[in-house]
Amino acid sequence: MVESAIFNIILEVQPKSMGVADLGCSSGPNSLTAVSKIIHTVNVVSQQIGLSVPELRVSLNDLPGNDFNDVFKSLPKLYNKMKKDYGIEDCYVWGLPGSFYGSLFPAQSLHFVHSSSSLHWLSQVPLGLKPKVGTHLNKEKIYLSKSSSMSVVKAYQRQFHEDFSLFLRSRAKEMVSKGRMVLSFMGRRSPNPCADEACYQWELLANALMSLALDGLLDKEKIDSFNAPYYAPSLEEVAREVEYDGSFVVDGAETFVIKWDDGDKSDFNISIGYRVAKTIRAVVEPMLESHFDLGPELMDELFRRYAKIIDDCLSKTKLKYINLVISFMRNDFNGDGDGSSDDENGVGNGGGSGSQEAREVVVVGGVVVVEGW
Amino acid sequence: MVESAIFNIILEVQPKSMGVADLGCSSGPNSLTAVSKIIHTVNVVSQQIGLSVPELRVSLNDLPGNDFNDVFKSLPKLYNKMKKDYGIEDCYVWGLPGSFYGSLFPAQSLHFVHSSSSLHWLSQVPLGLKPKVGTHLNKEKIYLSKSSSMSVVKAYQRQFHEDFSLFLRSRAKEMVSKGRMVLSFMGRRSPNPCADEACYQWELLANALMSLALDGLLDKEKIDSFNAPYYAPSLEEVAREVEYDGSFVVDGAETFVIKWDDGDKSDFNISIGYRVAKTIRAVVEPMLESHFDLGPELMDELFRRYAKIIDDCLSKTKLKYINLVISFMRNDFNGDGDGSSDDENGVGNGGGSGSQEAREVVVVGGVVVVEGW
Repeated sequence: MVESAIFNIILEVQPKSMGVADLGCSSGPNSLTAVSKIIHTVNVVSQQIGLSVPELRVSLNDLPGNDFNDVFKSLPKLYNKMKKDYGIEDCYVWGLPGSFYGSLFPAQSLHFVHSSSSLHWLSQVPLGLKPKVGTHLNKEKIYLSKSSSMSVVKAYQRQFHEDFSLFLRSRAKEMVSKGRMVLSFMGRRSPNPCADEACYQWELLANALMSLALDGLLDKEKIDSFNAPYYAPSLEEVAREVEYDGSFVVDGAETFVIKWDDGDKSDFNISIGYRVAKTIRAVVEPMLESHFDLGPELMDELFRRYAKIIDDCLSKTKLKYINLVISFMRNDFNGDGDGSSDDENGVGNGGGSGSQEAREVVVVGGVVVVEGW
Repeated sequence: MVESAIFNIILEVQPKSMGVADLGCSSGPNSLTAVSKIIHTVNVVSQQIGLSVPELRVSLNDLPGNDFNDVFKSLPKLYNKMKKDYGIEDCYVWGLPGSFYGSLFPAQSLHFVHSSSSLHWLSQVPLGLKPKVGTHLNKEKIYLSKSSSMSVVKAYQRQFHEDFSLFLRSRAKEMVSKGRMVLSFMGRRSPNPCADEACYQWELLANALMSLALDGLLDKEKIDSFNAPYYAPSLEEVAREVEYDGSFVVDGAETFVIKWDDGDKSDFNISIGYRVAKTIRAVVEPMLESHFDLGPELMDELFRRYAKIIDDCLSKTKLKYINLVISFMRNDFNGDGDGSSDDENGVGNGGGSGSQEAREVVVVGGVVVVEGW
């Protein structure tokens, strides 16, 4: 989908200088993987089409607390590889700290936007779940679950709507006409936001936390008051936001099923539950740390119990995540006569000009089942 | 000079989107001071002239090892201040790691370049000082000194020429016609590169290192083989590079005298030597660490001795640094008919088009003596 999006940009827009953004680049050994692939693809595609390779302005974005130092230390190696292996010299990589839920870039400066494993994080815990007085709404749980009340579900859905619509509105201003955006994040196939495939990792983590509380190692109120700033939407919910916004069309979408017990099983000394718990720990530990204040030993104990719960579960049933990959095109606002005024059509103006195309959103693609599933 | 440069850019170029770079931003409490002042000035000047405030694209540059995390953590505060105090919203601040001795930015993307206290650092130790065989050329010294041989002086001058000409050549490509650049760095008034005002802090630091060697605490060979990647040029040497390059004119230059014993003297418990030693330690310690491998205790001892040597010296004579502040204008390559071909005139082509103006370089301004000096 990334290759196809880049092909279409180069062919249709023919930029001399191309703005690229990776939103939620994180830090670590794979934080330049996407950008490296994108730069290479621009190079290959330009040559295939017979156009000169555009100057590349690449921005790596994440929150200001991200370890950009770590990312920047790998940049000289990336530049070297690009130059030596592909002859690419006209490429500039910046770091841009800030939340992608809001304005990040100058108007119409981006041709291609990429984001992987970031958009399932909400900008904040849904507000309605933290009542100023009275009891917590989502007791003994830390995300949606089958027993969630309607008001909890609605609070999560409202926050997703606010965040995702702000995301689209912000990118719409920043992207050029016919620019492309490929987003990949956790989601679900089920229309039910409380389906297991959307919630089960949180459900079992809540169970592990509750077992600490039952043993008197953790105050139960801490669990009642914690809610993950996370939402796993369905393709239909995303399409609804796109339609509502009116600045994009979806030109491709796929659903990937990822089995919890998939991946490297070569180390027989490590249980699958332990491996899954470790993966999730890498993502959620900072969040748990700041809320639960467990200390290193209790944190280890929490994830030992979590691993055991996962192993018990996997012995009885198969568990899976759903990953959505969606490709968007910024509406053509040069060709349809409404020009730059298109940018003024905010969310509250779904019936405004430029939304015609968006109303005919067709979600292409469907479920890609992992082999053997 | 910064205000005047920005005034001229806004008046003459009238950019809708303005590219700004701070080269060598470093990290710490004052790393956003310059950029904050620049953004504010653009705002004020635009309103004075009666033009709408341009969109601001600001890049903070330093080497990839710089602590950008620290800088980025202060950005939300900067954005808030700009928005709340001055109503500036259309402002975007990136981090861009890389050496300014070479290409950093896309062609013609910068309107204003600023750099403070960075350009006295060379890209490397002058090559001639590290002979593959034979003895070291700059024995018992760590920078130029009155006893330096001509070959040592020449090696430093050659490195300065290579670095500064590459710096100008790189910026010339990146800046727009009539763009401005204000650089401030350590230099000298004397035509002699070995004058005290250019070298004395290194001379005394070499003495402190030698006293460790004499006490058997440090191998003397370590001192012989260390040379600071530093050069304090005169205004005339800078003007010569500008003329040689041919893409800039100097439209303002000042020399500031900074007394070593100036500044806050309110703490009577701390000697001036200790304060000066501390200031210099903050800058040179990482360099010394990697070469001398002293360990924390010997490093403390080195700077105790350095402080004492400085105090002894200050009791007999007055010591001063010289700081150069120079304002450059990128040649007008739109108006003089040689267009973009101007960019092709490299260093080897001093007689090419576009160098006419540069040949008439006049160094304006002179010595600004600090009050009471």
